Order: sequence, then structure tokens, then C-alpha cells
Amino acid sequence: MRKLAAELIGTFWLVLGGCGSAVLAAAFPEVGIGLLGVSLAFGLTVVTMAYAIGHISGCHLNPAVSVGLWVGGRFQASHLLPYIVAQVLGGLLAGAVLYLIATGKAGFDPLAGFAANGYAEHSPGGYSLQAALVTEVVLTALFLFIIMGATDSRAPSGLAPLAIGLTLALIHLISIPVTNTSVNPARSLGVAVFAAPWALQQLWLFWVAPLAGAVVGALLYRAVAR
Amino acid sequence: MRKLAAELIGTFWLVLGGCGSAVLAAAFPEVGIGLLGVSLAFGLTVVTMAYAIGHISGCHLNPAVSVGLWVGGRFQASHLLPYIVAQVLGGLLAGAVLYLIATGKAGFDPLAGFAANGYAEHSPGGYSLQAALVTEVVLTALFLFIIMGATDSRAPSGLAPLAIGLTLALIHLISIPVTNTSVNPARSLGVAVFAAPWALQQLWLFWVAPLAGAVVGALLYRAVAR
Amino acid sequence: MRKLAAELIGTFWLVLGGCGSAVLAAAFPEVGIGLLGVSLAFGLTVVTMAYAIGHISGCHLNPAVSVGLWVGGRFQASHLLPYIVAQVLGGLLAGAVLYLIATGKAGFDPLAGFAANGYAEHSPGGYSLQAALVTEVVLTALFLFIIMGATDSRAPSGLAPLAIGLTLALIHLISIPVTNTSVNPARSLGVAVFAAPWALQQLWLFWVAPLAGAVVGALLYRAVAR
Amino acid sequence: MRKLAAELIGTFWLVLGGCGSAVLAAAFPEVGIGLLGVSLAFGLTVVTMAYAIGHISGCHLNPAVSVGLWVGGRFQASHLLPYIVAQVLGGLLAGAVLYLIATGKAGFDPLAGFAANGYAEHSPGGYSLQAALVTEVVLTALFLFIIMGATDSRAPSGLAPLAIGLTLALIHLISIPVTNTSVNPARSLGVAVFAAPWALQQLWLFWVAPLAGAVVGALLYRAVAR
Repeated sequence: MRKLAAELIGTFWLVLGGCGSAVLAAAFPEVGIGLLGVSLAFGLTVVTMAYAIGHISGCHLNPAVSVGLWVGGRFQASHLLPYIVAQVLGGLLAGAVLYLIATGKAGFDPLAGFAANGYAEHSPGGYSLQAALVTEVVLTALFLFIIMGATDSRAPSGLAPLAIGLTLALIHLISIPVTNTSVNPARSLGVAVFAAPWALQQLWLFWVAPLAGAVVGALLYRAVAR
Repeated sequence: MRKLAAELIGTFWLVLGGCGSAVLAAAFPEVGIGLLGVSLAFGLTVVTMAYAIGHISGCHLNPAVSVGLWVGGRFQASHLLPYIVAQVLGGLLAGAVLYLIATGKAGFDPLAGFAANGYAEHSPGGYSLQAALVTEVVLTALFLFIIMGATDSRAPSGLAPLAIGLTLALIHLISIPVTNTSVNPARSLGVAVFAAPWALQQLWLFWVAPLAGAVVGALLYRAVAR
Repeated sequence: MRKLAAELIGTFWLVLGGCGSAVLAAAFPEVGIGLLGVSLAFGLTVVTMAYAIGHISGCHLNPAVSVGLWVGGRFQASHLLPYIVAQVLGGLLAGAVLYLIATGKAGFDPLAGFAANGYAEHSPGGYSLQAALVTEVVLTALFLFIIMGATDSRAPSGLAPLAIGLTLALIHLISIPVTNTSVNPARSLGVAVFAAPWALQQLWLFWVAPLAGAVVGALLYRAVAR
Repeated sequence: MRKLAAELIGTFWLVLGGCGSAVLAAAFPEVGIGLLGVSLAFGLTVVTMAYAIGHISGCHLNPAVSVGLWVGGRFQASHLLPYIVAQVLGGLLAGAVLYLIATGKAGFDPLAGFAANGYAEHSPGGYSLQAALVTEVVLTALFLFIIMGATDSRAPSGLAPLAIGLTLALIHLISIPVTNTSVNPARSLGVAVFAAPWALQQLWLFWVAPLAGAVVGALLYRAVAR
């Protein structure tokens, strides 16, 4: 139960920090933080929370991570569903709090953009479904590969939170223009319910692709590390 | 006494570095550091000072942190008031030095903006009092949650300064548009006395909300960590 | 074989992350990550992968690094060619995946720019061949000097991945305007084959200069460290 | 002799990286790294070099740091002059290499700006001599305070390079608009000789203020740490 509470709070932090910086600060006139600031914000949610709750729940904050670690032999099957439920609830709670804050500004319209993930006409840069699919699968695969490697007993101890969070920052530096970057189904769902209707219609891709990529990445690490 | 001197110097650094970068460099023509640079500056004041004086005073630099750690069972009640006084003095001294530097430029007007925190008509992005309140309470709660977690004996040792400072950077990445980001009453007071009159009139929120959030966050961590 | 697979995947990550952020996100309208974001992306590919596979292959990801470490007495001659082949294959695979993603946007033209390295009329800022040569030799020399130093048994353990990756970020902060920054022949080759014809014509410089610089830097460290 | 070679190479890196990023990349059209990128570049020169040569020479790279550490009881008087000479030579060599690279671009004029430090009419933001003096003294004092603290035997081991380098980044985030940021006489001298004549005329301030600040900061730490 303590673990599930930690995952809920941690995923709340990931979605509030990452999507919050995107909605509130990315395009602020003249001095906005841009996609670089949003990328760092997503990464720092994981760096900071992993130091805070890594010793409690492992700090997955992401159904794709939980599934990947299970495939990789690092996580028990029996914990999988409860973890995913806690992550989804944390993401939804963050979406709600962000909605409350963002609508405190006159004229804000969540339908015009609420950090939702999308492809084709809803890709920030107009990338096709195929490009979005490749991007999300490949980047989630590398994410899991690095998570497995950085938490390997042979890797330097104590620095996995930094390596893993910075990987998420890097993933955003590459791919926000393509899909607004998911690699995390709970993050996608958490804001989709508050955004325009297309966000829920396109949500399937941001469950399928990250989960598929996570399985590939975990198996790849197992093969390489023996 | 050594601890109080360290807290004073440390809070001086937090306010000089964070508010100084905001006042002097954020909107510099063409190449200004923007809200991203200011966010990193606030975070780095804590990262750097925590490595320098963590072993002396614990490096709180913030009345909300001292109160939260007391509620969380990590700080003695008898030290609370002296710490807060030292932090406030450090913040005021930084405000004075920053005033001295900033007015060394012809035409600078502190009344037009001196990194003061505000809501409603004085929110940088025009966010309501309610949005400001929610933002400051929630972010300070998460700040304390992470401070408690990263300094837990089960967390990797030596990296709490990095995790805590980067949390402050992340908090700024999210919320400068909402309140100019406080989560720290000493930081708010330190510049408010040199800024326009509204800064002191709205100062109450930046004592009430961070302190309330800190209590919530500390209790939350205690509950989750057992 | 495990080592070669790790080098291939790692170099794939370096080229996909660094060149991918450049091609997809650097000049995104209004909120693009700019050369700063690209520099951090290149650096973070190495930081993250070094924590993930440092214990498997040493995480060179770069023929110049492998050659430099061999000259510096830290790498066996017999592994040199297989490592370089794996790195080149990883770079080419990343170029192909990036091509697939980038062309998913209507109107994208790889001939107009695909993060290829160049000098003179193909230098981003119009720098001469001589300036490009000096830049690549000097920066690769310092890169190897720092790699040798940070992995010295007398240096703090566990932090070399951070130091080395941040060195690559710094190198990009200095030199993208000069050559688009190589210091890595596999990175240059990986995208050159998908870019305009001049990229392959100018490729020789981005093998000669980084390899020469790497030899200089490794010998310099040996001399200074005794 | 090995120590002096390390200091020379290290200071070469600090000036080439910091001033190089400023001259070559800060104002690159559309995607330039800005003052934020330059600040990070200065900081990363120290982070990276401190991991590479900290175990050889202590990695001062700065006459003010050497003097401050001597006053603080951490450095022998007999090493002071040789260290400063090596640092100055390294800075000058970097200025020369940067001049060689920068003039490889048609139309580049070092007299129009070569990252030199200045005050009053030569302050980037037009700050007075008094503001420049206060800024350089205060920031160098805090720099030494943090260096002394982060290298204290009671501080977490292995992370002082990160803390100290990030302090230099933070100092630049605050003060580039005021003086172009020195806090390092060797850095100021290294580029002043290649810049417009005013740079040498104003150089005195960037020896006097950093050295005075360093003495203050070192004594302050001794007093606070007992």
C-alpha cells in the first residue's frame, strides 16, 4: 500500500511537472522556457522523485516501465496491475490539479492544447502516424534498455536516478515535435481526459507503442547483458 | 551560532542568485536567460550551497523547509525561530545588495519589477488568487515530500543536495508564470521590501501557502514511508 | 560479441539523440530547443548510455575514443577494428531511423540539412577549413584528455559518465557554428550518407581531425599524469 | 611540474570553452545558445576538468581560487606564484586559439567583442564601476565560500567538482550583463590582449575585485566552519 501511494504521488509529480511546465510556461511571451525547458522539467520529475521514493516503490511512475521491468525479470507480475492503477490515478489527479491552475487565467482554453499527445494532424510538427509509432516504440525501447542497465548491480550505485531522469529529458529533446512525447501511457491518459476530444481518440497509440517498445528494450538489455 | 551564520549566508545566496538572475539577466535583449535560466539559477543556489554547508546547518535556507522538517520529525523545535530569523536576514541582505547592483544601471526602476511574488493582477501571467494558492501549496508540499525522501537514510547518500536543488529548479519551471514562484517566505520577503507597495500587500500569501504546503508534504512523506 | 552489440546500440543512441534533436527540434517555431538543446542532447546520450553499458563495453561510442584509449594504454589493439565497425553500424542505423521519422513530415528535405558536419561553405557559420581543422583537433584532444583523467583510478568513482557526457555537451556549445561538431567519425558518417552529396565529400576531415586530436589528447594525459 | 601542466591545460579549457562559446555560439542567428548556454559552458569547463585533473593539481584554474585557498589554509604559499603563471599562460593560449578559430569566419572583428570583461560604458548592460565592483567581489567571495565548503572533509565525497562547476555556471547566470563575468583574473587577461584596447585598460578591476572577494570568502568560511 505504501508502494502504491508512492507511485501515485510520483506519477502525479511527473505529469504535474512535465505537462504543467508545458501548459503554463513553455510559450510564455519573450521569456518562455520552450521545448528545452519542458524536456528538462519532465526529466527532473524523475530525477527528483527517484531519489525521494526509489527506496520505497522503485519509482516506476509509468506503466511501460513496470511492464518492461517485469519482462526484464526485475518486477513481480502480481504487482503489475496495482502499480498501473496507482500510476493512472496519479496522472489523472495531476491532470485535474493542472486544469484547476490553468483555468485560473482568464481566457485559457484546454481544448486549444493541454499537453496531450497526438499524431498526424495533431502532431505538434505534423508528423505521420507511422513516424509517431516508430518514434514512440524506439524511444521507449531505449528508455527501458537504459533503465535496466543503470540499475544493473554492476553499474555505479546511487546514480541511476540521475541517468534515468536525464534519459527522459533527452527523449523529450528529440521527440516533442513528433508526438508531444509520451513513452508513458499514464502521462498520456492523465491529460487526455481534460483536452480536446481527439486526444482520447488518439490515446490508443500512446498505450500500444510505449508498451511494445518497453518489451523490446527490456529483452534487448537481457540479451546484451546476458 | 555557526549554524545561523551558515543559514544567513545560504539564504543570501538563494535570493541573490535566484532573484538576481531574474532581475539582471532574464530579459537581457536577444540573449537573455529567460525563465529557464532563472529556474536553473534558483535550483543551483540550493545544489551548490547544500554541498557547502549541508554539514554545518543542514542548509534549509527557507522557513517552510525548517517548519516542514520540524513537523516531519527531523528538526528540533527550539531551533525553529533562530533559523527563520537568520533566513529572513539573509534574504533581506540579498535584496539590498541586489538593489545596489541593479540601480547601477541608468534607468532601472525597482518599482517596475524586482522579482517580487504576486497573484491576480500581479501574477506574471495573470493567474487568480485561487490558482496561486493551489500552486504554492501543492508545490511546497511536493518540495518537502522530496526533501524528506532524498534525505531518508535509505536514499543514496551524497546526492540529496542535487535532488533537492533540482526540485527547486523544476518548481520554478512550472510556476513562475503563476506567482513568480515563492515556496519560500524568506525569498518573498527579501525582495518585497525593495519592490512596489503591492509586493508587501500580497506577501501574506507567500508565508501562508508555503508553510501550509510544507506541513502537508512532511506529513505525507511520514505516512507513505511508514 | 556482447560488447559489440552494446557499442552498436550506444552509438545508435548517440546519433539518434544528438542528430535527432538537431533535425527534429532545434529550429521548431517559437519554442525550438536551439543549439543549447542540441548540445545537451548530445551530452546526455553519453551520460545516460555510459551508466547503462559502461560496465559492458566501456561505452566508447566513437572511433576516436577507441583509438585514443588504445594510444593511452587503456584499450587492446585487437578490439579496435571490431569496436569501430560496431560504432559505424550503429551510427548508420540511427541515420536510417532518423530519416524514416523525419520524412514522416510533409515537405521535409534531407538535402537541405540532416545534421551533417561541414566546413567552409558548408560550415553552419561559414568558418574556413583551417578553423574547422583546428577546432576538431583541439576539442577531440581535450575530450580524450578528460576521458583519460575522469576514468583514472585516482578520480572519484562512479562520476566519469557524467563528466564525459558533459564534456561532449560543452564541446557542442562551443563548436556547432564552426563544423556542426563532429569529434566522432561514426556520428559524421551515420548522417552523411543520408544528407546532400557535399557531406560525403567533406567527410574525410571528420575522420582525420578527430582521430589526430584523440591521439594528441591521450598522449598529453599520459605525459601530465606521469 | 605535472601540476603546473595540468593547471595550464585546465585554464586553457576554461577560457576556450567559456569564452569560445560566447564568441562563437551565443548570438548565432535564430538558434544561438544565449547567456544561458555561455553560463553552462563556463560551469561545465570546471565540472569536467575537475574530474579529470582534480587528483593531479586540485584544479584551481583561477588565480583568485589559488589565493583564496591559500588564505583559507588549504594551499601552500610556495606554490602560489607558479600556479598563477601557469593559469595565465593557459588563458593566453586559449585566447590565441580562439582568435585563430574566430577569425576563420569572414568579417569577424575581435575589436567588436571578444568576451572581454568591462564596466561602465563597456559593461554589457551598462552597469557602473561601483555595481561591477560589488558584483565581482560578492560573487567571488561566495565562490570561494562554496569551494571551501564543498571540499571540506565533512562534505559528500566525489561531488565537489559538480558543486564548484555549477557555482561558476550560476555566477554567470547572474552577472554576465553586469561585467561579462570574470571572478577569474586569468580568464580576463587571456582574452583582453586580443580584444579592443579598453579591455586592457579596464583589466585592473578584474584582478583586484576577484582577489579581494576570494580573500573575504575564504575567511568567511573559516569563521563559519570554525
